[in-house]
Amino acid sequence: MGKGKNTLSVFALGGLNEVGKNMYAIEYGEDIVLIDCGNKFPDESLLGIDLIVPDITYLLDNKEKVRALIVTHGHEDHIGGIPFFLKQLPVPVYATRFTLGLIELKLKEHKLLRESKLIEINPNSNVKIGQMEISFFKVFHSIPDCLGIVFHTPEGNIVHTGDFKFGLTPANKEYSDIHRMAEIGKEGVLLLLSESTNAERPGFTPSEQIVAGHLEEAFMKADGKVFVTTFASNVSRIQQVVHVVQKTNRKLVLLGRTMVNVVKVAMELGILTVPAGMIIEPQEVNEMSPKKIAILCTGSQGEPLAALARLSTGDFRDVDVYPGDMVIFAAGPIPGNERGITTIVDNLYELGANVIYGSGSTSGMHVSGHGYQEDLKLMLTLMRPQYFIPIHGEYRMLYHHRLLAESVGVEKGNTFILKNGEVLDIEESIPRQLRTIPVGNTYIDGGEVGDLEYVLRDRKQLSEDGMLMIIITINKEDGELQADPEILSRGFMDENFAKLRKEVNRITMETIQELQIENRIKRNIIKKQIKKNTRQYIYKYAKKKPVIVPILIEL
Amino acid sequence: MGKGKNTLSVFALGGLNEVGKNMYAIEYGEDIVLIDCGNKFPDESLLGIDLIVPDITYLLDNKEKVRALIVTHGHEDHIGGIPFFLKQLPVPVYATRFTLGLIELKLKEHKLLRESKLIEINPNSNVKIGQMEISFFKVFHSIPDCLGIVFHTPEGNIVHTGDFKFGLTPANKEYSDIHRMAEIGKEGVLLLLSESTNAERPGFTPSEQIVAGHLEEAFMKADGKVFVTTFASNVSRIQQVVHVVQKTNRKLVLLGRTMVNVVKVAMELGILTVPAGMIIEPQEVNEMSPKKIAILCTGSQGEPLAALARLSTGDFRDVDVYPGDMVIFAAGPIPGNERGITTIVDNLYELGANVIYGSGSTSGMHVSGHGYQEDLKLMLTLMRPQYFIPIHGEYRMLYHHRLLAESVGVEKGNTFILKNGEVLDIEESIPRQLRTIPVGNTYIDGGEVGDLEYVLRDRKQLSEDGMLMIIITINKEDGELQADPEILSRGFMDENFAKLRKEVNRITMETIQELQIENRIKRNIIKKQIKKNTRQYIYKYAKKKPVIVPILIEL
Repeated sequence: MGKGKNTLSVFALGGLNEVGKNMYAIEYGEDIVLIDCGNKFPDESLLGIDLIVPDITYLLDNKEKVRALIVTHGHEDHIGGIPFFLKQLPVPVYATRFTLGLIELKLKEHKLLRESKLIEINPNSNVKIGQMEISFFKVFHSIPDCLGIVFHTPEGNIVHTGDFKFGLTPANKEYSDIHRMAEIGKEGVLLLLSESTNAERPGFTPSEQIVAGHLEEAFMKADGKVFVTTFASNVSRIQQVVHVVQKTNRKLVLLGRTMVNVVKVAMELGILTVPAGMIIEPQEVNEMSPKKIAILCTGSQGEPLAALARLSTGDFRDVDVYPGDMVIFAAGPIPGNERGITTIVDNLYELGANVIYGSGSTSGMHVSGHGYQEDLKLMLTLMRPQYFIPIHGEYRMLYHHRLLAESVGVEKGNTFILKNGEVLDIEESIPRQLRTIPVGNTYIDGGEVGDLEYVLRDRKQLSEDGMLMIIITINKEDGELQADPEILSRGFMDENFAKLRKEVNRITMETIQELQIENRIKRNIIKKQIKKNTRQYIYKYAKKKPVIVPILIEL
Repeated sequence: MGKGKNTLSVFALGGLNEVGKNMYAIEYGEDIVLIDCGNKFPDESLLGIDLIVPDITYLLDNKEKVRALIVTHGHEDHIGGIPFFLKQLPVPVYATRFTLGLIELKLKEHKLLRESKLIEINPNSNVKIGQMEISFFKVFHSIPDCLGIVFHTPEGNIVHTGDFKFGLTPANKEYSDIHRMAEIGKEGVLLLLSESTNAERPGFTPSEQIVAGHLEEAFMKADGKVFVTTFASNVSRIQQVVHVVQKTNRKLVLLGRTMVNVVKVAMELGILTVPAGMIIEPQEVNEMSPKKIAILCTGSQGEPLAALARLSTGDFRDVDVYPGDMVIFAAGPIPGNERGITTIVDNLYELGANVIYGSGSTSGMHVSGHGYQEDLKLMLTLMRPQYFIPIHGEYRMLYHHRLLAESVGVEKGNTFILKNGEVLDIEESIPRQLRTIPVGNTYIDGGEVGDLEYVLRDRKQLSEDGMLMIIITINKEDGELQADPEILSRGFMDENFAKLRKEVNRITMETIQELQIENRIKRNIIKKQIKKNTRQYIYKYAKKKPVIVPILIEL
């Protein structure tokens, strides 16, 4: 069937059957409005790739219809793709103040800030696009300034929840606006898109208040410095830490670029209050008594390049972890990151630290920002949608969310578990799921902060651009090279390959020496650095951009 | 310091700072007795390696002293290295009946059974080796027939707990022998070696009985076939399943070679009771009503080659998962395996199954076999050791175990957190930790069941034997090859490399076609199969054994 003029169409370019890379679209008549544009990290099978963002081919083919990008909140899986998106398809971006702050940080790094059109919104804003009137409502999540979105169309109202939980006792009084949600539900919701992350977990999401008490307890017991690692964007958690730091009469140090930047933005926007004089520089740490020091640092997910990983191997300038220091993981492990985290925990124990970690429920230092089953049922009940598309989750999460919807009265058959690219068309209140639009992954090579030489590829390009493999064999114990690096190429030709090989060899060995490999954590640092240095060299020398794949074999 | 004639020495060749590859040694005078010989799986950095076992160089250099291998129980991380060990250093092996049954299965596969000396022991046995009298005591674990060991030496008594928990209501009445443990403690324990796996978890390990009730509930609710996946060696769990299958009037099918073999051994030894006529063949499944069928299958850890993974992709001959069938994960995810498991769960949901999974505490279908903190404290209290070496764990687990020991009265400074190879010498009751013996990993290439062409390498050989890399680029969606496979070699020369490359190319493409790649699960199947086929060919053709590294790039 064709798509009539007054058809409402809803689809995802990312975020379904996956956690990450969220990008949804509401299309009515000649207008497409996008919701969020996030990124995702590759799993081990995608060698040579650093980041994945949604493939926007369909949007580029329909660019005259794409009107705006609305961003629900500032987490990476919702904003991480924005610079790459705007570079190809500049449209106005609507977001709240704090979210804009985080987006601006990214655009600055990509040198896109000046030409971008960023429009600040709040829960009371109204935006008109084509025949759609768009309003908003406040939701509570593990980052400040989050919104849900209501699209008022002639076909009916579509609600997108953003990421949420019902934090009935939020740390900073940022309540979810239940009254507004009830009003919206009363007006009538044709279609609800609601996030499914914790749809497998029974009960209500535990309250933020739990953490405050545990933090205080821990600080009181601490004999030396206290390190707290958490997500820089979790401002309410950081506020709790600041409160306890003040109570225990300590100074506060911020370690990790993201932590420094985001705290700065939050303070400037008045979302985070830090007593004057509390924050000191890393260099001052060793001049003061350890009992007077608290440190907020990045790296709660075991990220090899973040502050905590480097602290755990004694590789952070100015600051060390000493016996008797305390390290608190005030963030839960995102599934998949457990191994990297336990390696750091082991290292910290070997340094003599007292480590508080584990999933939130065991250590009490973290609660999820995503609604558990009762939160999700409450949203469904408030919204009372006729149709439902569970979003933001892997298949089993979407599946469970459908069960929840049916348990609170959404009729069987009215919930649609879609895949990315599958379109739900609604015309005269009749939903049809019959067509798909092209979707996929765009692979980013490089693309880290400040890496303006990143390369964007689609699947075809990835298999055509050629590949350079650098095989490094190192001694697992002391990081010594066991053999010269091997440089192998596939589909990548250069007249003077011998010279190139020799030079890449040299770059590799130099990089390794600089990084003085010692343990497992360093493995990823080595690979990233070798990739970066090699890519720069090859582009400079051969003007080519093969996929660089360092393969590290540890013996 | 030298090692005097009456020095008691204790060290590990594997199992410290790691979970896996357990191998401990008690040395007194001219006699060395080994405890366990397990294996470990490599992490992603060790390309081309299938299995890791302890490096026994030190034992080979002192082979005239090595008297026996005592095995505490039949889990892979305690017996998986035995065939490779006995092949190099044949000594008598002491183990209980069920444990011997599992060891025999392995030795049969390696064609070592006939020449091996296997001696059956039980909790009342006594073994004299040199000046050591060795006795045993029963412990409860997640596999039948487990023992702890007591070494009575002139220097004092050393106790090794094996793996244990205090299951006060075990399913099959296999109680831990607390009375015997109390006697041993009363006699006096110089040194205790106790396993640390769950030393981070507060409380007592939950009881097995929890599972029985939940299993029954689930079976009662099931509309179609019920699949239960669990460890084949967890005979008490299997007994619970058999009980419920009988109660719900179903027939039972065993899927997966390990499941079939181990159930057979357990039934022959009288440890598992299955009503006559309950077990039927897979081929009979489709002739019966689904409500009459229960299936026990391997694959609870997401293993790509095991039964459950193949069932989840419709690749199991004779048996399919249909909408309405139930799948129960009656085993907890071993840390690191979560991703593989959730992929299978997603697949099963897409097939329309009702899946019960999650960590034991959420689904109630599994409890750990390892003692939590109160179990460990109880063991320490019963044994009242003077000195303590926490074993069987990563650093943080050993660390926590030391805290537990100190909390129940082991004097500060009397607990030794060792690394593999670090020796504790005790002479005239004075412990000294001053020397180390060589330890390491032995890498097994191949070595899977029936793979008699496996290759054993140490670190040096791994970097010298040369490597053949096979790079395969496939389409993530449909498994189609995106380009011809690339064959690259490093340090592996052959005169007719062009011919070899062409043949390996052909083998690779054939293997892929046979396996009809469809999703992520298949990735590991492909790599294993390509490796196997390629290794066979190269050995046959070139009489060489390079490390084969298939690299799969999915786009």
